[in-house]
Amino acid sequence: MEIICIGNELLIGKTLNTNANWMAKRTTSLGISVKRITVVGDDINEIATAVIETLNRKPRFVVTTGGLGPTFDDKTLEGIAKALNCKIKLNENALKMVRAKYDDFVRHGKMEKADLTPPRIKMARLPEKAEPLPNPIGTAPAVVIDFNGTSLLALPGVPSEMETIFEQSIVPMLKKEAGNAAFFEASVFVDDIMESTLAPLIDQTMRENAFIYIKSHPKSEEDTPHIELHFSTTAKEPKAARNLMGKATTQLSGLIEKRGGKIKTSRRRCNLS
Amino acid sequence: MEIICIGNELLIGKTLNTNANWMAKRTTSLGISVKRITVVGDDINEIATAVIETLNRKPRFVVTTGGLGPTFDDKTLEGIAKALNCKIKLNENALKMVRAKYDDFVRHGKMEKADLTPPRIKMARLPEKAEPLPNPIGTAPAVVIDFNGTSLLALPGVPSEMETIFEQSIVPMLKKEAGNAAFFEASVFVDDIMESTLAPLIDQTMRENAFIYIKSHPKSEEDTPHIELHFSTTAKEPKAARNLMGKATTQLSGLIEKRGGKIKTSRRRCNLS
Repeated sequence: MEIICIGNELLIGKTLNTNANWMAKRTTSLGISVKRITVVGDDINEIATAVIETLNRKPRFVVTTGGLGPTFDDKTLEGIAKALNCKIKLNENALKMVRAKYDDFVRHGKMEKADLTPPRIKMARLPEKAEPLPNPIGTAPAVVIDFNGTSLLALPGVPSEMETIFEQSIVPMLKKEAGNAAFFEASVFVDDIMESTLAPLIDQTMRENAFIYIKSHPKSEEDTPHIELHFSTTAKEPKAARNLMGKATTQLSGLIEKRGGKIKTSRRRCNLS
Repeated sequence: MEIICIGNELLIGKTLNTNANWMAKRTTSLGISVKRITVVGDDINEIATAVIETLNRKPRFVVTTGGLGPTFDDKTLEGIAKALNCKIKLNENALKMVRAKYDDFVRHGKMEKADLTPPRIKMARLPEKAEPLPNPIGTAPAVVIDFNGTSLLALPGVPSEMETIFEQSIVPMLKKEAGNAAFFEASVFVDDIMESTLAPLIDQTMRENAFIYIKSHPKSEEDTPHIELHFSTTAKEPKAARNLMGKATTQLSGLIEKRGGKIKTSRRRCNLS
């Protein structure tokens, strides 16, 4: 999977990109890996270029967030249409979804009449070949387009809407793709051994434990070392994965203690789809 | 400027990308705009591809974070060397910086002897044509490479190190480039008017206030609207910028109140370099 986040607010540092983090974590937990995250502004050409480059790498899934709303700066669908060299047109299914939302607001006394003004109709104007996905809590439908084996999915940027649509419409696709695969991770926290001293011990453990990836995360400076060692693997067999993880964490912990490092805590987590 | 963040931890959702957010905010405040943020994993080919693509867009600055440390998974400099089609070699200035750090640790009784082991020497092995930038609080030097008019800057991923080097070595370059330019922003919070109703009012205000960018950020759903309107501009003349901002916020606030919306609070901020 690749993720494309769209919004000037991300490029000016106004908004922390929690959407990318949430999607990356959720996708990884289902045994699907995220290869790249790209952030661009609210600009049709920037969006189109990012989409073209991403599609050229032929990922199974591309998920975009942001830029589906009613205002002029919501340009994601125009950018995607430009990338795919197709037109934007009113999608009847999407219009039904949008109309139903505003009719509902009237029914619940939240507005007087549900005029489908141009900004509201805009949310139902999709690239040709696109189909809408229901947005259970917002007004702008999400969008799915199948393109040469890639499922291109456009989600809103409001986190609650993005997460709800992701769970409802995208997680089932990811589960189908991943089969029984799952992501396993464990952390060991180590004190009193420098990262540069740890380096060859990590190398040795990785060499002797195929399929386990170990990454060191320094939590302080080299001279007062406090380091998180993060072990991870994606596997189809939970029991075998747990055994491999156990062996690797035990082996590296032993090597570290021999060199005078202190194992502080160990935490293991398994994310099952 | 473009930013490239390197680290599997970002792609598995283990780490929230606060580095990109911090750099984007700081860079924008100095009147320099960030055009794209790319996140890739600890993989030489992925890093090299991202660097090549970014350099092809010819930004004035490219800043990378992460992947400069002593462990096998620190691959940024190899990725950059591959992108530039040049070799990695021991840089004497970088080696002096690394050696000074470990000598210092010995002097302060934090280690017995300062052997320059291969993982430590690794931090001084830079792409040809690169020069090290001092890292005041960590061991791995940062790196600067001038390439066809782009300054390519590689910083560590540990936030405290990244921020310190950015302030010390990069902010002066950005200020020189930006001259007197500065970024100005203001927010107006609005209740009881739907984003789809706001859309034409924002359009009108932007049409009549050149140079001011207005973006709506819904903080809740369309039927219980609470929306932040964010005004921004980059300008060389603080006083003129403030006047333009004032005019735009006043005009849009008036239009909103006429349509029954409630202006809740207004906040203006000027970031001066």
